[in-house]
Amino acid sequence: MKLATLKNGQPDGRLVVVSADAAHCVDASPVAPTLLDALQRWDAVLPALTRLSQALDIPDARTSVGAIAFDPRQCAAPLPRSFQWLDGSAFLNHGRLMERAFKTPPIADFETIPLMYQGAADDFLGPHDPVPLPSEDDGIDYEGEFGVVLGATPMGVSARQALQHVRLVVLLNDWSLRGFGPREAKSGFGFVQAKPATAFAPIAVTLDELGPAWREGRVHLQLQTYRNDAWCGHPHGGAMHFDFGQLIAHAARTRRLSAGTVIGSGTVSNADAAMGSSCIAERRMRETLAQGAPRTPFLRFGERVRMVALDGQGRPGPFGQLDQVVLRAGALAAG
Amino acid sequence: MKLATLKNGQPDGRLVVVSADAAHCVDASPVAPTLLDALQRWDAVLPALTRLSQALDIPDARTSVGAIAFDPRQCAAPLPRSFQWLDGSAFLNHGRLMERAFKTPPIADFETIPLMYQGAADDFLGPHDPVPLPSEDDGIDYEGEFGVVLGATPMGVSARQALQHVRLVVLLNDWSLRGFGPREAKSGFGFVQAKPATAFAPIAVTLDELGPAWREGRVHLQLQTYRNDAWCGHPHGGAMHFDFGQLIAHAARTRRLSAGTVIGSGTVSNADAAMGSSCIAERRMRETLAQGAPRTPFLRFGERVRMVALDGQGRPGPFGQLDQVVLRAGALAAG
Repeated sequence: MKLATLKNGQPDGRLVVVSADAAHCVDASPVAPTLLDALQRWDAVLPALTRLSQALDIPDARTSVGAIAFDPRQCAAPLPRSFQWLDGSAFLNHGRLMERAFKTPPIADFETIPLMYQGAADDFLGPHDPVPLPSEDDGIDYEGEFGVVLGATPMGVSARQALQHVRLVVLLNDWSLRGFGPREAKSGFGFVQAKPATAFAPIAVTLDELGPAWREGRVHLQLQTYRNDAWCGHPHGGAMHFDFGQLIAHAARTRRLSAGTVIGSGTVSNADAAMGSSCIAERRMRETLAQGAPRTPFLRFGERVRMVALDGQGRPGPFGQLDQVVLRAGALAAG
Repeated sequence: MKLATLKNGQPDGRLVVVSADAAHCVDASPVAPTLLDALQRWDAVLPALTRLSQALDIPDARTSVGAIAFDPRQCAAPLPRSFQWLDGSAFLNHGRLMERAFKTPPIADFETIPLMYQGAADDFLGPHDPVPLPSEDDGIDYEGEFGVVLGATPMGVSARQALQHVRLVVLLNDWSLRGFGPREAKSGFGFVQAKPATAFAPIAVTLDELGPAWREGRVHLQLQTYRNDAWCGHPHGGAMHFDFGQLIAHAARTRRLSAGTVIGSGTVSNADAAMGSSCIAERRMRETLAQGAPRTPFLRFGERVRMVALDGQGRPGPFGQLDQVVLRAGALAAG
């Protein structure tokens, strides 16, 4: 099943079920007004949502349920806000390059205990929303990731049991400001100013939509990023060192996780430089290692970043795409 | 005005207005079903909430609005969950002692840029809720703090303007697990496992309730803690190095903050050791400095922690008290 949220002027938007081909969608609000509500009552609403999903793929039934054309440009993030967003760093290649970029000391237990920070869940951006930021001097960067959305998950869940609590898979851009990262990392308190609002591709999918691309607690798709018209990378999500079960178990070791908690994979990253990268900082670090200095600048206002998941044959994955432009904060309000 | 939330089996509870003497309360749900809802429509609901508050202090009117006895034991946290919880570390005495306790290197800009981590907002504990934790080996500790609850706050707000967005002041216990703190601090990603669910005193108050105790963006009350029957400290909240305006401005530098965002002061801490401390770790560090080793153990299951705010004459502040017992996670479910 594919789910999305249309903007309706309210903070949580309006839940829709999307057809398999993403051409149509149907209002799901008689079943659950919002995705956050649906996640809190998942077992109760799943049968009715599934019936809507099935109706969308039959032309006559599609008409009778009142389907409309699905327009990703009308979408908020699948969860426009949630009560918890925890982002792991499960691709060790990314972590190793960022350690060198931030000039931070090597982290103990790097390969046995996941790195994870708590991010802001109160304000997620939609897939075509502009990205308002205060300054081009802050090192504006993107980070392409896969993520999972959980049902209520108990404290102390094991890595194996944890996967039973995964309700949906998402594609996201963890927008990052590199000018703040090293200082905040050195402070020990983690990232606040370095992590502005996170953006999501329009469609959240149940595990069955991924078919064989969901296995071993990982998303076996490539994450392709374009900066303006330039290809930047398509590293493979299967290279996660820690799987999502391990990330969830780490998050839940001393707390229960409420329904709607989003857990991110961290930047999708492969050791093979030919796969490119899902953030600028990695590319700059590779340039520094190869040539002594970075050559690729961070983003300027007006630049565009697109992300999409691809299968092994280069066909788009089920999430739809992110397509955003970075803007000076206040530029929108000022017209 | 004093506000609280009664448990009703729903995640956000039911909003009540509390009388000045905290003896009575009245259902506010016809005005706003939950405090989170009220914060999102503050200007629209404030007149009606104020009328309920005024009625509570007149015996005849109190009866006519259907007031009942106020029982803090029926309370959830004023906000049982929110979309954002950011905790500063504005008492430099605490930061300096914790740096030594964690054996982390001195932090650059310690006196000019606030330390702040993002905490879990999805599951706040009520003032009399037990505190379920997985192990006594994790260094179970409390941290007494004041906090503010915000209305919607724009990105880039100045420290001075930020105080205009403060809606409520709260008293909280930022439960902490010291066994995880040093490793998570060294990782640079901040605290996840080190910070289980945070607990709140029952009553959130508007600024006018504090009178002269709210000035210069600080809460000029003492925070008194008892462990079981032993006094542990009553340091003064006025000693904040950064005021709440500076903490909010720090949080909002690269993001807007949604209504309901909670900003914590960090552990209330005074340089004068005679004031005691609001956490065990500080006391242990003082013992180490004075005697070469800590003598005070962290908490064991079954131990009780109480916190209350006091004015200069030793009279209780307006928040009510926290009174919680630490338990092994699962002990409640198991009966």
